[in-house]
Amino acid sequence: MKNTFGESVAVTLFGESHGNAIGAILDGMAPGIKVDEAFIAKQMGLRRSVSSLSTARKEADEVQILSGVKDGVTTGTPIALMIKNGDTHSKDYENIRTVARPGHADYTAYCKYHGFSDTRGGGHFSGRITAGLVAAGAIAIAALSELGIRIGTHISKCAGISDRGFEHYNDDIAALGDMDFAVLDTEKSEQMKAEIAKAKAEGDSVGGVLETAVIGLPAGVGEPWFDTLESVLAHGIFAIPAVKGLEFGGGFSLCDMRGSQANDPFVCDGDTVKTATNNNGGILGGISSGMPILFRTAIKPTASIYQSQNTVDFVKKENTELLIHGRHDPAIVHRARVVVDSVTALILCDMLALRFGTDFLKNGGRA
Amino acid sequence: MKNTFGESVAVTLFGESHGNAIGAILDGMAPGIKVDEAFIAKQMGLRRSVSSLSTARKEADEVQILSGVKDGVTTGTPIALMIKNGDTHSKDYENIRTVARPGHADYTAYCKYHGFSDTRGGGHFSGRITAGLVAAGAIAIAALSELGIRIGTHISKCAGISDRGFEHYNDDIAALGDMDFAVLDTEKSEQMKAEIAKAKAEGDSVGGVLETAVIGLPAGVGEPWFDTLESVLAHGIFAIPAVKGLEFGGGFSLCDMRGSQANDPFVCDGDTVKTATNNNGGILGGISSGMPILFRTAIKPTASIYQSQNTVDFVKKENTELLIHGRHDPAIVHRARVVVDSVTALILCDMLALRFGTDFLKNGGRA
Amino acid sequence: MKNTFGESVAVTLFGESHGNAIGAILDGMAPGIKVDEAFIAKQMGLRRSVSSLSTARKEADEVQILSGVKDGVTTGTPIALMIKNGDTHSKDYENIRTVARPGHADYTAYCKYHGFSDTRGGGHFSGRITAGLVAAGAIAIAALSELGIRIGTHISKCAGISDRGFEHYNDDIAALGDMDFAVLDTEKSEQMKAEIAKAKAEGDSVGGVLETAVIGLPAGVGEPWFDTLESVLAHGIFAIPAVKGLEFGGGFSLCDMRGSQANDPFVCDGDTVKTATNNNGGILGGISSGMPILFRTAIKPTASIYQSQNTVDFVKKENTELLIHGRHDPAIVHRARVVVDSVTALILCDMLALRFGTDFLKNGGRA
Amino acid sequence: MKNTFGESVAVTLFGESHGNAIGAILDGMAPGIKVDEAFIAKQMGLRRSVSSLSTARKEADEVQILSGVKDGVTTGTPIALMIKNGDTHSKDYENIRTVARPGHADYTAYCKYHGFSDTRGGGHFSGRITAGLVAAGAIAIAALSELGIRIGTHISKCAGISDRGFEHYNDDIAALGDMDFAVLDTEKSEQMKAEIAKAKAEGDSVGGVLETAVIGLPAGVGEPWFDTLESVLAHGIFAIPAVKGLEFGGGFSLCDMRGSQANDPFVCDGDTVKTATNNNGGILGGISSGMPILFRTAIKPTASIYQSQNTVDFVKKENTELLIHGRHDPAIVHRARVVVDSVTALILCDMLALRFGTDFLKNGGRA
Repeated sequence: MKNTFGESVAVTLFGESHGNAIGAILDGMAPGIKVDEAFIAKQMGLRRSVSSLSTARKEADEVQILSGVKDGVTTGTPIALMIKNGDTHSKDYENIRTVARPGHADYTAYCKYHGFSDTRGGGHFSGRITAGLVAAGAIAIAALSELGIRIGTHISKCAGISDRGFEHYNDDIAALGDMDFAVLDTEKSEQMKAEIAKAKAEGDSVGGVLETAVIGLPAGVGEPWFDTLESVLAHGIFAIPAVKGLEFGGGFSLCDMRGSQANDPFVCDGDTVKTATNNNGGILGGISSGMPILFRTAIKPTASIYQSQNTVDFVKKENTELLIHGRHDPAIVHRARVVVDSVTALILCDMLALRFGTDFLKNGGRA
Repeated sequence: MKNTFGESVAVTLFGESHGNAIGAILDGMAPGIKVDEAFIAKQMGLRRSVSSLSTARKEADEVQILSGVKDGVTTGTPIALMIKNGDTHSKDYENIRTVARPGHADYTAYCKYHGFSDTRGGGHFSGRITAGLVAAGAIAIAALSELGIRIGTHISKCAGISDRGFEHYNDDIAALGDMDFAVLDTEKSEQMKAEIAKAKAEGDSVGGVLETAVIGLPAGVGEPWFDTLESVLAHGIFAIPAVKGLEFGGGFSLCDMRGSQANDPFVCDGDTVKTATNNNGGILGGISSGMPILFRTAIKPTASIYQSQNTVDFVKKENTELLIHGRHDPAIVHRARVVVDSVTALILCDMLALRFGTDFLKNGGRA
Repeated sequence: MKNTFGESVAVTLFGESHGNAIGAILDGMAPGIKVDEAFIAKQMGLRRSVSSLSTARKEADEVQILSGVKDGVTTGTPIALMIKNGDTHSKDYENIRTVARPGHADYTAYCKYHGFSDTRGGGHFSGRITAGLVAAGAIAIAALSELGIRIGTHISKCAGISDRGFEHYNDDIAALGDMDFAVLDTEKSEQMKAEIAKAKAEGDSVGGVLETAVIGLPAGVGEPWFDTLESVLAHGIFAIPAVKGLEFGGGFSLCDMRGSQANDPFVCDGDTVKTATNNNGGILGGISSGMPILFRTAIKPTASIYQSQNTVDFVKKENTELLIHGRHDPAIVHRARVVVDSVTALILCDMLALRFGTDFLKNGGRA
Repeated sequence: MKNTFGESVAVTLFGESHGNAIGAILDGMAPGIKVDEAFIAKQMGLRRSVSSLSTARKEADEVQILSGVKDGVTTGTPIALMIKNGDTHSKDYENIRTVARPGHADYTAYCKYHGFSDTRGGGHFSGRITAGLVAAGAIAIAALSELGIRIGTHISKCAGISDRGFEHYNDDIAALGDMDFAVLDTEKSEQMKAEIAKAKAEGDSVGGVLETAVIGLPAGVGEPWFDTLESVLAHGIFAIPAVKGLEFGGGFSLCDMRGSQANDPFVCDGDTVKTATNNNGGILGGISSGMPILFRTAIKPTASIYQSQNTVDFVKKENTELLIHGRHDPAIVHRARVVVDSVTALILCDMLALRFGTDFLKNGGRA
């Protein structure tokens, strides 16, 4: 289905980095949900993250709502979100049409689109396309929040520096809300930023790991086959550019445990069934257990670096070297976190609507 | 879509561990593909892995082809594959209806199915259901092989012991073919088995990491959004029971690299475009590059252990203890590898058919 | 998606007329729905319609439930339904491999499957494949009936003889239930049968029109784009072999009306909104209005006739004549009605589950 | 999937009649297809049909291409098409919020969207939303035309006046191209227009039947289950507002034929397999035969009429009368024909891409 994702609540993306406009169609959201344009703008700002760390490209990224919202609430019909492209320096990219930037999709795009795709700034492969996801995700995040379902992502690791994990979910998620560099231990934040600055000074880039928690999701959401909660989240998360790994709960570390350590013992907390540990990341048999959903996403270092690299001209079939001009971002992990939140929210809206019906997001099952 | 996965080539699963039969419908395979029942049986054997390491359950696992194959070749219409259940000791499981086995889906199944699902042996959540995937996957693996696309998976890590990585893809994949405990370095194989035996003796279990390589896949397969090759593979792989992590190429280790290290430099090998390293696992921008597809799958330790565990009766909402009787498997990682191969093959068949048309699998694009 | 239809409640078909078995996987039905095997058998009987009018093929058509039902109720996981093929006289069909039977799919199947498809008895194109739909549909019909949603189809027209239309929906639908030749005006029934017998005597066949009513469907089901209730029903109904037309409410006759005649005036019946007429067949803007859903399905005359026909050998590219041996059915319209009911029920289950959640079919929205 | 339709080539619609903008995202079109904005504008003009017959609303309907087209050719990535709404007289519709217009979706929209949907001018249910389909369809029509696949639709019947049927497909389809009132027999055209004018003078409206032919479609496209060519076309056609019936080939008239009349005898025309008649409308067993695809679509009379009608206030649950102010269209059948062409073209592009791969539309299978 390519650029459309979701079944009951679905998002469709369009646009190229240096085209006229980018955006998203968000379809299937329940009617009657409040849409707060200031919150959308805030989320867009977190993605843009205009700061000393990031790309010099300065887009207003103003989201125009073309349809689906009336008097500040959703109508139930498709919500078209458009962001005009403004500050495009296309000439920066002119020399890369047939010379592949290492780590980028130039060559694979050529294999698929036979040279017709818009290569300026990465075209439809650009991280800029995630702006549409963030705009749509902001509406999904707000809708979930009304139902008590909250999502938080922090930079678990960047350039070798590790943040602490989630401790008090409510407080931690609340604290992350507005941070443009989302780290739970503020001391680690400064260390990470110093490493990013150092990489930037050396014309290089760094990657990182994002950790996401979702609280308030009811038990019983997901399928044993094939739409396990892990499967659908993974489908969406791996579509985010630069994502190269994903693990739920204990993830890869479970492989070094015994079953007696990895199994999460169940305990009753009054009438609520919980587990004493959460190695399964809130998902058992593909279905939510009511415990916090926990996953970690690996983001590779930004592919664009300011160093000469060995590569090829894939039309001439010749080896060559390339120094990429234009704007560079020494790290995107801090910008990616709001994209991960957005994709997560969109997927959860879809799975809740599939499970409990299309009106659920409005009123949590109440008539 | 629940129990159906794929768009052009799709598989539908059915069955419960202790029901009448389990199986799969494989739809959309090109007509004219040879179906070798002996190869299907061999693959089924790798999954069953009847050995000292594994579950005592002994199923013949004979695959009956009910439709879609005539005179030993595919007809192009749905291939129904049925495996009758025989050796079921349902009484072993009778006492776990409302007492959740830690690490299993009993409680989440209850939240979703309100107590109506078949809980005997895990029911539809059982690893046994993967037998249908393996039967269907055997047909897909053979079809891909005719096109020069080959898949191999080895136990990269088990119980703390690591295997070497892929070195010579062709030879390594060929060597893995028939192994019932697929390890590239045979010395490590013995060490792993010893650890598994030790865990078994202690009534415990171990997990592991599987590493998969695909060679021969043409460049240009996959989508930038949302059906990236990583996304679709992840969707399928995470649907396999006990999978808790997945990484492509360098995966999580990329997070500790600089861009200058992580980027794979392109090089021309005659007229073929390659990369000097393969940190991106053969996928750039969600699309295959022609390099080997590489990914690693984390398998958690078998949830069923022969130890008393703390848990709850989720109907009575009471804490209790549980000692699971019945058959136990101290490790499933060696059995899971053929499931990973099968899911990978089914997904690649689907993506190739979507990209190049429904006849491609038969004749690789030749009329 | 080929042989799978539906999103939340989906059915997958498999099998060939003269293969080992045919059947269906019904996925997504809510847990806890009673499954009455006697009712399934009754519906199978209506489809088979062993009588003087119909094909000589006598299949027991015993439906084996392989999974998804336990202790007589649905588990919520896929319901695999298998019907073994018994009475197959393959030699009857041997000479038609490359000579196209007029009105049949032999030639188009060849264009699609390149000669590999099973051509015996029509293979996967055979009307016999609808047996799987009827088995799955029986479960859907029973589930809807528990919610007060009832479906009835009668032979509106056959061989030039017209039945009366629906007058008292409840009574008419109830009366149709067990009829193996479903006509509301019994006098017309005899006339139709006489015409069918006459066609049979002349080695010929007849077609007909089926009219279907659904009562009890809540208002608000369906989408404005693209999954209008008409669209999804049409998708399913046109998949039934021999269907060549479909109209809702006034259908084609609306084209001769003025808007002032065609518009259905709304009226309040207490607190219930109704329409005085039902020219829109219970659907406005693609969404159910609460009025009875009404549609008419055109069934072409059975393609197999006992007369020599002009045709071609599509491999030799030669004109030739063909006299089809084997069993012939002078009419299928009376057998098709239970197929139409079944497809309608499966689609409504899907649309209700999408609209109101996956538990709705069990308890109509009650917790 | 609601507002998205298609699998390999898909279209997503958005917008409301009186909102900011309407439009469509066309995804999956092959790269390298010429996009002629003048042709798009011409098609938009045929839909708008500003004439004495039609609505007074005068929209420029200028299509802005936001993405997916570069230097006049498709890039292979999503094509976003936006049409700004200009001439909206919202106050004309203010009094109909809770009083249902007979024949319209006001009441069913209320049941689905609980009063939150945009009701101005029909909102998302408006025929105006088809402008997005026409813009996307223009690109599809042009792509098919390059492959020799051409589509033509004429008004087969309007207000009781019948046009002649297709005789010489090539010439007839060519002749229809630019007509804003597409009738093959021009004399009948004047009669139809006179009847429409008469209905308008009486504050009333008329409906009609459209007949569509597709030539040049290769044999072998479509599926036996469930995506028969008829099924998928029906799904799309029935999503067009006001469509209430659809028949292929002989359609409902087949019900009065014998099999010996209805069966189309095959004949060899050199090496080409054809049929002497085309009662099956170019589709056998759900798959194209190479003969012209033929279908007829029933369009109900325009629901908006300038007469007082009985109706209800569905919030107050009271009977009332309604005289609809605002702009009225005494017929839409002549405007709908380009919508039918567009939907047909979009579906055929999807089915060809599914059958022959995503590059087929560019080069007809040539590398």
